[in-house]
This record gives sequence, C-alpha cells and structure tokens, in this order.
Amino acid sequence: MSPNPTQSTSYADKARLVAKVGANPPAVILVEPQLAENMGTAARAMMNTGLTDLRLVNPKQDWLSEKAIGASSGAERILENARRFETAADAVADLQRVYAATARRRELVMPTLTARAAAADMRGHENIALGVMFGRERDGLTNPEISLTNAIIEVPLNPEHSSLNLAQAVLLVGYEWFQAGYDGPQTLMTFNTTTPASKEVLHGLFAHMERELVTCGFLRNEEKRPSMMTNIRNMLQRGDLTVQEVRTLHGIITELRYGRRPDRPARQKGPLGPSEPRKGGEDS
Amino acid sequence: MSPNPTQSTSYADKARLVAKVGANPPAVILVEPQLAENMGTAARAMMNTGLTDLRLVNPKQDWLSEKAIGASSGAERILENARRFETAADAVADLQRVYAATARRRELVMPTLTARAAAADMRGHENIALGVMFGRERDGLTNPEISLTNAIIEVPLNPEHSSLNLAQAVLLVGYEWFQAGYDGPQTLMTFNTTTPASKEVLHGLFAHMERELVTCGFLRNEEKRPSMMTNIRNMLQRGDLTVQEVRTLHGIITELRYGRRPDRPARQKGPLGPSEPRKGGEDS
Repeated sequence: MSPNPTQSTSYADKARLVAKVGANPPAVILVEPQLAENMGTAARAMMNTGLTDLRLVNPKQDWLSEKAIGASSGAERILENARRFETAADAVADLQRVYAATARRRELVMPTLTARAAAADMRGHENIALGVMFGRERDGLTNPEISLTNAIIEVPLNPEHSSLNLAQAVLLVGYEWFQAGYDGPQTLMTFNTTTPASKEVLHGLFAHMERELVTCGFLRNEEKRPSMMTNIRNMLQRGDLTVQEVRTLHGIITELRYGRRPDRPARQKGPLGPSEPRKGGEDS
Repeated sequence: MSPNPTQSTSYADKARLVAKVGANPPAVILVEPQLAENMGTAARAMMNTGLTDLRLVNPKQDWLSEKAIGASSGAERILENARRFETAADAVADLQRVYAATARRRELVMPTLTARAAAADMRGHENIALGVMFGRERDGLTNPEISLTNAIIEVPLNPEHSSLNLAQAVLLVGYEWFQAGYDGPQTLMTFNTTTPASKEVLHGLFAHMERELVTCGFLRNEEKRPSMMTNIRNMLQRGDLTVQEVRTLHGIITELRYGRRPDRPARQKGPLGPSEPRKGGEDS
C-alpha cells in the first residue's frame, strides 16, 4: 500500500492477484485419451495454468476436431502444437523427472506426493525437463507406465468421491504448479478512486459522533459513556472505512440529528469536518 | 513411519493422502445458472471437495434433469437436496459470511482474497454459517449481488487466459477449502509389503559390493577407492532402497561376479548377507 493516503489514484492498480507464468512448466502427457472433448478441456486447463507442452500417447480421437477445439475454449494453440507418440516411454524420452497423476499403487515402491507437494517438488527442479503423466479416462495408468515416472501425484479429496475427470485432474495439478510460482498478494483491498481513512480522519468522525450523541441524549449516562464509545469506535474501525465513507457518515449523523431544523450547525471548513456532509447523499 | 523396520505389514496402510471431510463446509450459491449440465458438474465438484449445500438462484434449466444428473457423476444427492431461491438475497439470508467468486470489481470497496486465502479465512470462521456465491456462466455477478457478500474470491491464473467454467471455479474454491482442512502427510512413501532398509542393511550391501569390486578389479586403484565407494554409496542411498531391493542387489552382484563359476562363495547365514541372493531373480 502507498504511504500517502491522500492520493487519488486507485490502490487496485498497484497490485494484482495474477501471477506471472512461471518458468519451466511441466509437459502434460495424456496416455490414450478416449475423447476429443477431453483433450480440448485438458488443453483449456493447461492454458489456464500456464502449461503449454501437450503430448498425446496413442489418442483414440482427433485432437484437432471441431469438438476438441470447441472444448478448449481458446486454447487451440496448445492442441495445434500437441505431439503424438506411440508409447508412454517415447513421450517421456527427453524428460528428466516425470510424475504419474494416478491413484497410489500399493504394489509399487514409490513416493506419493499431494498435488501441492508435487508442485513444490517441480519448482525445486526448475533446471531439468519435467512432465506429468495422466492416465486413460477409465483405466488410468498401468504399472509399467507408472514405473516410467519418479513419483505419484495423488490429490487429497473426499475419500467417498475422489474421482476427477481428465480436465479437472490437469486443472488441479496445473493450478498447484501455478500457485507455487505465484508471488503476488494473497489478499488485496480494493479502494476504487478513494483511499482508506487515516486514524486522524477516523478520530474526527468519532469526535463528531460522540458530540452529537451527547447533545441528542443517546449518551446521557456519563458513567457508561466511555465503554459505549469504545464499542462504537471498535465497530466503525472494523469496517476499514475509506475517506469517502467517513464523509458519508458525517453527513448521515448531521442529517439524522438536525434534518432541516433551524438549530443545524453552520458549515465548517475542512474536508472531513461536519460541514461537508450535506452532499453526502449524492456522492457516496 | 514405524520404529520397527522388520515388521511386514504395509507402511501404506498407516497413513493415507485423504482428508477427513472438514466441519462447516460453505454453502454453494449458483446465481442464475443457465445449463443443467453445469449444475451437474458443479455438484460433482462439490462432492469431490466435501461440500454439500447447493443453492440455486432462479436457475434457467432443471437441475434434476437427466443431463444434470448424468453430469454430476454420482453426486445426484447434492442435486436432489439443492434448494431454489428467487433472489441472491434470499439465498444468503441465513448465512453469516459470504464470498463472491468473481473477477474483482474496482468500483466496489471490497477485500479480494485468493482462493487459498479465502479457504484460510473460511477455516478461521468455522463457528458461523458460510457461503460462496458464483455468477452466471456469461455475465458473472452484478454489483448489487456482490454487495451482499463480505469479500471477493479471485483465483490467480494465467492472466492471458483466466476464464474458468462454473464447475472448475467451484472445484478450485472447494479444493482449497478441502486442503485447508487436510491434516495428512504431503508426501508418503509406499512400501508395499516390504520396508525401507536400515542403515545396517545398507552397510552390509556396500561392504559386499566393495569386496567384490576389489576382487574383480574394478577398484584396483587404491588411491581412488575411497572416493569411488563414497559415490557408489551416495548413489545407492539416494534410491531409498527397501529390504527386498537390497536382497535383489546382493543377488545381482553375486551373479554378475560368479555366475555358475566354481569359485562362487558358499551361501552364508543371515537374511541379507551374500548367501541369499540366489532367489533374488525370482522374488524381486
């Protein structure tokens, strides 16, 4: 956030919740995908998550068909650049570290990683050629295919219902890879053209409110007054008010208290005193 | 891992990369979904990630149609239990903290959270009723609808191609919610019925290998021998060998060195000396 709270440019311009597409994305190897549509939706998930290298092992339909291109929702370049291989071994030949996205196999002595741990592992191997192998829609990968890989990726999901379709599996693995390279903020307050109120501006609001709550009688009990004002200040502070919202609240207090009554106080100078609020109804 | 490396039960039985389905899952509110299929795939994504409460605001097709049920891949109970509301305000009336899954709006003063930060935020509000609102397939949410919520969820994705379909958006938000409650291991070695070799077992293998590499002549240079053995030990240690694999390697060394030659050493006692390897070819 800017150190100068009075500037008028948008805070939102300064940081974005988008990542730069990371270096060395893993290749995606789909082993014997059955449906053109699934190749298209897998390509879309790759595009969403910054992956580009699609390798198809003996695909059963045309990955450049209208159905595939349509399902890719704009990721047709990934399909056009996809390469076809006869066997999984051929498809991974130039890669140096490969993961198998499949349910864990007890009969193989293999490290199994969550998608998150696999993403960290990939980021820890940015200097070598990586790939993730996904199995057939129905039958997954065979043990000889899995033995071509270094580790299994298993996504922790509801154990009662953990099956994902091909594109969803590609999406979750790619998503974690992308997040592992994301260095932007995890939370970001959007302030439009206004800025968050400084404490001084808030204290002005609290003082105005206390003054009017005393004169109108709401704070007539002097003993309880400090704790009531503490609660009111706390409540208002929790809202992360902007300068413009403070101005609106000044106006609301004055209008509720005086309306068109003749004892309404004269306008005072200053941007956030009780003088300006008359136009609060318009600009808030 | 067990402190007793000689036991024969599978290590894989002791920990699983599946989470318990967490407490207090957020409701999923779909505002004016157009297609029955999307309601079905969204329900599937909910089931995958442990979400159960589906709320439909003025849906444009029947969420119990054959198409919707088929697309839900077994999540039909979520569709059957889904509730229909006229307005987004009605749909969130009983909720206490609601998130809007939508592209960030500059004109609203709102906190924006990544899906991961939102999941942590939800887990930090486990004692109140939560919901996530998803917009129309084409048009998303209106500003008045977003103003019913506490914060925006934005998923960091490839800025060139960040649009997700409805089910994918539900999947990623639900996935992060699920992961935030996942307390299992992030990596897990699967050992089948064997166990990882102890250092003592490995040292026996290294000693056997060194002995045979000396007598066969491979380590004839005495000066280089220590560094060569260090490299060999390092290479073998990196493989996280199991007891059974060590047995196999003992057998391989003996067979390569002696085959059927008459000077083959007699079998020795002990489970992992160079005596047992003859059956390595069968049981490995």
